[in-house]
Amino acid sequence: MSTVHESYLVGLIGDGITASMTPPMHEAEAAAQGLQYLYRPIDLAQIGRPAEDVGDLLRAGRDLGFNAFNITHPCKQIVLDHLDEVSGRAAALQAVNTVLVQGGRFVGHNTDQTGFSAALATELPGAVKDHVVQLGTGGAGSAVAYALLDSGVRHLALFDIDPERAAARAQALASHFPQAQVSAVGPEGLSEAVTRADGLVNCTPIGMHHHPGAPIDLELIDARQWVADVIYLPVDTPLVRRARSLGCPVLDGGAMAVGQAVDAFRLITGLEADRSRMRRHFLAMLTAQQG
Amino acid sequence: MSTVHESYLVGLIGDGITASMTPPMHEAEAAAQGLQYLYRPIDLAQIGRPAEDVGDLLRAGRDLGFNAFNITHPCKQIVLDHLDEVSGRAAALQAVNTVLVQGGRFVGHNTDQTGFSAALATELPGAVKDHVVQLGTGGAGSAVAYALLDSGVRHLALFDIDPERAAARAQALASHFPQAQVSAVGPEGLSEAVTRADGLVNCTPIGMHHHPGAPIDLELIDARQWVADVIYLPVDTPLVRRARSLGCPVLDGGAMAVGQAVDAFRLITGLEADRSRMRRHFLAMLTAQQG
Repeated sequence: MSTVHESYLVGLIGDGITASMTPPMHEAEAAAQGLQYLYRPIDLAQIGRPAEDVGDLLRAGRDLGFNAFNITHPCKQIVLDHLDEVSGRAAALQAVNTVLVQGGRFVGHNTDQTGFSAALATELPGAVKDHVVQLGTGGAGSAVAYALLDSGVRHLALFDIDPERAAARAQALASHFPQAQVSAVGPEGLSEAVTRADGLVNCTPIGMHHHPGAPIDLELIDARQWVADVIYLPVDTPLVRRARSLGCPVLDGGAMAVGQAVDAFRLITGLEADRSRMRRHFLAMLTAQQG
Repeated sequence: MSTVHESYLVGLIGDGITASMTPPMHEAEAAAQGLQYLYRPIDLAQIGRPAEDVGDLLRAGRDLGFNAFNITHPCKQIVLDHLDEVSGRAAALQAVNTVLVQGGRFVGHNTDQTGFSAALATELPGAVKDHVVQLGTGGAGSAVAYALLDSGVRHLALFDIDPERAAARAQALASHFPQAQVSAVGPEGLSEAVTRADGLVNCTPIGMHHHPGAPIDLELIDARQWVADVIYLPVDTPLVRRARSLGCPVLDGGAMAVGQAVDAFRLITGLEADRSRMRRHFLAMLTAQQG
């Protein structure tokens, strides 16, 4: 009865994240493993704090007994100024989504990147990685591009509606992965790049409930290609549906959402989450939210 | 799987409270009731914050998703400056040990007082309350004296090694309980007052591990009296042992410690704690700590 057992207190800091599924994903997995684990959403909009307060919130959380935080938009870069240590990959990305409180110090990681890599390896183990086209190079796109190159992609073509952003991202990534070829592709070369690609990854918002449509001409997709999408609202975007109908191997947006949670859970607890159970829970929550 | 269920995040703010038994008492009771309930000790000494920071800690805790706090030495008075609402009894005592976060507002209560009253009513239901002598009028003594008068004690005699404190406390209490007689008693009148009393309550530190001894001449105690002690380290003080050996009804220090927790648990969750189960857990922890 008086056994001392470890317990976990975790927070998610970000803007408009009250309905995020990451807290219940962690709590359900922890409950299934018999852990005492509480995960609180800390919504900047709701508490009326600016993104610049992320350091104050981390320090207050440390004083109040928090073990870890997930960090999301718009704090993934700002938080870097408040950490004592940053993993090599998070430093390269200049973006942190997981902060551990270890002996009073703040240690940053990026499980968006590692989570996508792990999901790709787990769910599309046979994916050919010679030529990949990625659409969108914003925050999620940055982590995904890093993950693709880290996973062994040899030629990565980046497209963005902002060509300068795509070019800058390509240049930055090339310096981290000198053995790979990273290039920016403009609208004029996109169709050809997609046609040649072994895999296609969408990191644009096109396909979300509020941005309906497809990020490319869906007729360009071929059955020999694999397709990934980071959107999970909905999880079956037009791109994902089209790819599935052609029989393409598909990594949908749930894979990255679950992947980042699996990796954060391991960092926080030292324990392996059950990826399939977490995904089932995630999909059940999506269904409940839409119902 | 995706059922929304309430969870509780609670903190104890005070100085040197890392080993307090209140957090595990709450957590064990909540676990027995199937609640998701995390209770963090927030030790001012450990985090290097002064007592004056209690308001900052409350506000940070609100932002980070805390539902409630227990407040202990040396913050029970200072915290009053940071509350939006205070229960009538806590206001009369000018001391708060429980703060609820309700709709973003801080509401203060004093379960030291209500907990002692409830323990007295539950464990010594037949106690005669005509004349009671209370030894010690510090922080705990203040709550206990209020509780005794609130429970119907008609003549309360207060003794303190600081006679002025006893006199000031008697005067303050008399204004709140005009139907009772509250007096200060000096060392010269103490033996006579104890001999005449129906009940005797110790709120001095004498009898603690670090203050060994008895707060009065134990020969003065009579089998027809009831005896209460707020000390729980150890729970079997010389006073308690002597009273039990005479067959007196006894309320030991565990009763108040458990009583404040039972009342705080009800305020926080709206649910009734199992007092006997909490007491068994409390005593088991005491034993483990000494072992």
